[in-house]
Amino acid sequence: MIRVAVLGYGTVGSGVVEIIEKNKKEVSERSSDEVGVKYILDLREFPGDPYEDKVVHDFDIIVNDPEVDIVVETLGGVDTAYKYTKEALLHSKSVCTSNKAVVAEKGPELLKIAKEHNCSYLFEASVGGGIPIIRPLNTSFTAERIEEITGILNGTTNYMLTKMDEEGVSYDDVLKEAQAKGYAERNPEADVCGYDTCRKIAILTSLYMGKTVHYQDIRTEGITNISKADFDYAKKLSCSIKLLGTSREVDGKCMALVAPFMVSNLSPLYAIRGVFNAVMVKGNMVGDTLFYGQGAGKLATASAVVADIVDCAINKGKNIGCKWEDEDVLLIDDSNKYFEYFVRVKREAEDEISKALNVKERIESDADKSEVGLILDTMSEERFFEIKEKFNDSILNYIRFAKN
Amino acid sequence: MIRVAVLGYGTVGSGVVEIIEKNKKEVSERSSDEVGVKYILDLREFPGDPYEDKVVHDFDIIVNDPEVDIVVETLGGVDTAYKYTKEALLHSKSVCTSNKAVVAEKGPELLKIAKEHNCSYLFEASVGGGIPIIRPLNTSFTAERIEEITGILNGTTNYMLTKMDEEGVSYDDVLKEAQAKGYAERNPEADVCGYDTCRKIAILTSLYMGKTVHYQDIRTEGITNISKADFDYAKKLSCSIKLLGTSREVDGKCMALVAPFMVSNLSPLYAIRGVFNAVMVKGNMVGDTLFYGQGAGKLATASAVVADIVDCAINKGKNIGCKWEDEDVLLIDDSNKYFEYFVRVKREAEDEISKALNVKERIESDADKSEVGLILDTMSEERFFEIKEKFNDSILNYIRFAKN
Repeated sequence: MIRVAVLGYGTVGSGVVEIIEKNKKEVSERSSDEVGVKYILDLREFPGDPYEDKVVHDFDIIVNDPEVDIVVETLGGVDTAYKYTKEALLHSKSVCTSNKAVVAEKGPELLKIAKEHNCSYLFEASVGGGIPIIRPLNTSFTAERIEEITGILNGTTNYMLTKMDEEGVSYDDVLKEAQAKGYAERNPEADVCGYDTCRKIAILTSLYMGKTVHYQDIRTEGITNISKADFDYAKKLSCSIKLLGTSREVDGKCMALVAPFMVSNLSPLYAIRGVFNAVMVKGNMVGDTLFYGQGAGKLATASAVVADIVDCAINKGKNIGCKWEDEDVLLIDDSNKYFEYFVRVKREAEDEISKALNVKERIESDADKSEVGLILDTMSEERFFEIKEKFNDSILNYIRFAKN
Repeated sequence: MIRVAVLGYGTVGSGVVEIIEKNKKEVSERSSDEVGVKYILDLREFPGDPYEDKVVHDFDIIVNDPEVDIVVETLGGVDTAYKYTKEALLHSKSVCTSNKAVVAEKGPELLKIAKEHNCSYLFEASVGGGIPIIRPLNTSFTAERIEEITGILNGTTNYMLTKMDEEGVSYDDVLKEAQAKGYAERNPEADVCGYDTCRKIAILTSLYMGKTVHYQDIRTEGITNISKADFDYAKKLSCSIKLLGTSREVDGKCMALVAPFMVSNLSPLYAIRGVFNAVMVKGNMVGDTLFYGQGAGKLATASAVVADIVDCAINKGKNIGCKWEDEDVLLIDDSNKYFEYFVRVKREAEDEISKALNVKERIESDADKSEVGLILDTMSEERFFEIKEKFNDSILNYIRFAKN
């Protein structure tokens, strides 16, 4: 019997309990042992809940119970989640989590503790919800040098951008709708400002580089500036606009960025609609691969957590290795990042801007004759931001083109 | 040091040797040991080849060398490949293969021998080339009851169908072109008649059902009847035509089929173009997921074989479990399979056919006024084949609609 304690009986935590019960046969068969929930830690009571008798309020009960093999951390936040995770690992209890904030901030430290205590720290659910991506990176791409990962990693913003693209809804209206449907939080910053995507690309990049990329160091631009006007131009370019997290290995260093991108309809990422996520992994041998599925949602995310539980159950008493060291990855600076840019500029400033820059293509706006769209030749981020600074009052918005 | 013997120095075999050399650092790091090729078994000599000194012609040298840990089987064909695989496993040497014919025909027997001899039989490369799909099925979807797998599993036919769709090329012309480019064999039967896809869906289905689906029992229709006319109708229906392998669990039994399908542009499979493959996995918790990448090609396929080598290296002396028993899966019969059908019929017979069937929609042909396209209401395969038999001279072609 494998005994699990679930920390936090919220959306994902209750999904974990539900799947262990609903798919008991599959989970136990795959684990070669029966898997059951022994404790649920939550500050609240759950009268009438079928698992109400398993609810405890004191983490010490869990960490001091030698019968508990695996701790599921679905608390959210960093401080308490980190503290409990660390304690559990120090007691040789494996921890499975969906908490990307803790993984992005404390990953290598917790992985090290797990290794030293013959248990595991697994976090498949922290990126891409139910999409298997972390385990494939660690166990399937073992013959590869990963050259790039680019993904639509946040379902909320992809839902919003899809609506704007397909129905011409404004940013403000689509945000309100997403909030009403429960896709976006009352304070939507983590999603719309790209912070969530940033942590996820930091985790994926650290995994394939084998060293730590600090999410704080990744330039992160959200979708708050994206308007209907941008989508009108995008359509003329056979593009859609997607919030991407992207990173590439460049001579042992790393290029990483979170921003909205123009994605061509020839890219497999173009077709990823609504709340779905997709992660493109480019290996030096296998070329481009793509993993697609529900990036969020109770059961999809919980399914990934339970797959981690099964892995810990099979490997009871052993550490499941993970190539992610404490050492820092060096990020390349803006002078070495190159992109092709789309800019919307005030028509009155078009001549001046066109003189300063190589304009590849010019797109008229149907809706607003006071502006024009320009596609600029590939240039460095450093140079682009100089230009942008100089013409700040005349550049209405800018969007990079995705490479694929 | 992990010593590998490669059986068959053809496309995939030489790719395996190339990757072990080119990505030596990654492969050895992931294996926690140096990985090297000790023997290459081939009937031919390779004068001037950098590995010419490793070439041997006698399998006994390999199987009797206690230093050889892992045997890579990339011979193709069944008889010799099966014989050598079995012998290697009986000598406790793990075997990694891309040979779907052997896996589909002898999978459960070889898996059992591997288990009894504390080694492993791995075949990630046998389905989907470089796309990680077998390992995710075995290790990532462990919290799921898999309900359906549907995939574009053959790159040659997808290349041909894409060309027909996008460029209006005829079947005969596109086949000649594919043969000239080396995508299709001189005898293209295995691809165009769906036999290759059939073996692959049989393998995937056996893996998620945990029992054996015999590929010989799966109805398999190829693309040889697909014409420009079919694509003209498909376009009017916002569909493309794709050769799919598909299977579904139905109350412990299984529905499996290989055939060309009408795939709507809302399906993620619609956008899979050219030689690429994609596998859609539907779990009862995670919903739809999709895995996409190069389904063939030297290095992509070899990359999957080398990932298996790494897995065997890490698990030296142990069996990597696989839920695939010798017991047969029961397949449901035609009276329990339901599809929506598109048929092209001779206009002179339209009235009679429309009286016998529920026609949902009628599509005029622009090119040929002597025929018309009909979309028929969902019905069982049994009923459809009765109708087809009856109106055999008047039904020019039929294509099922994919469910997604």
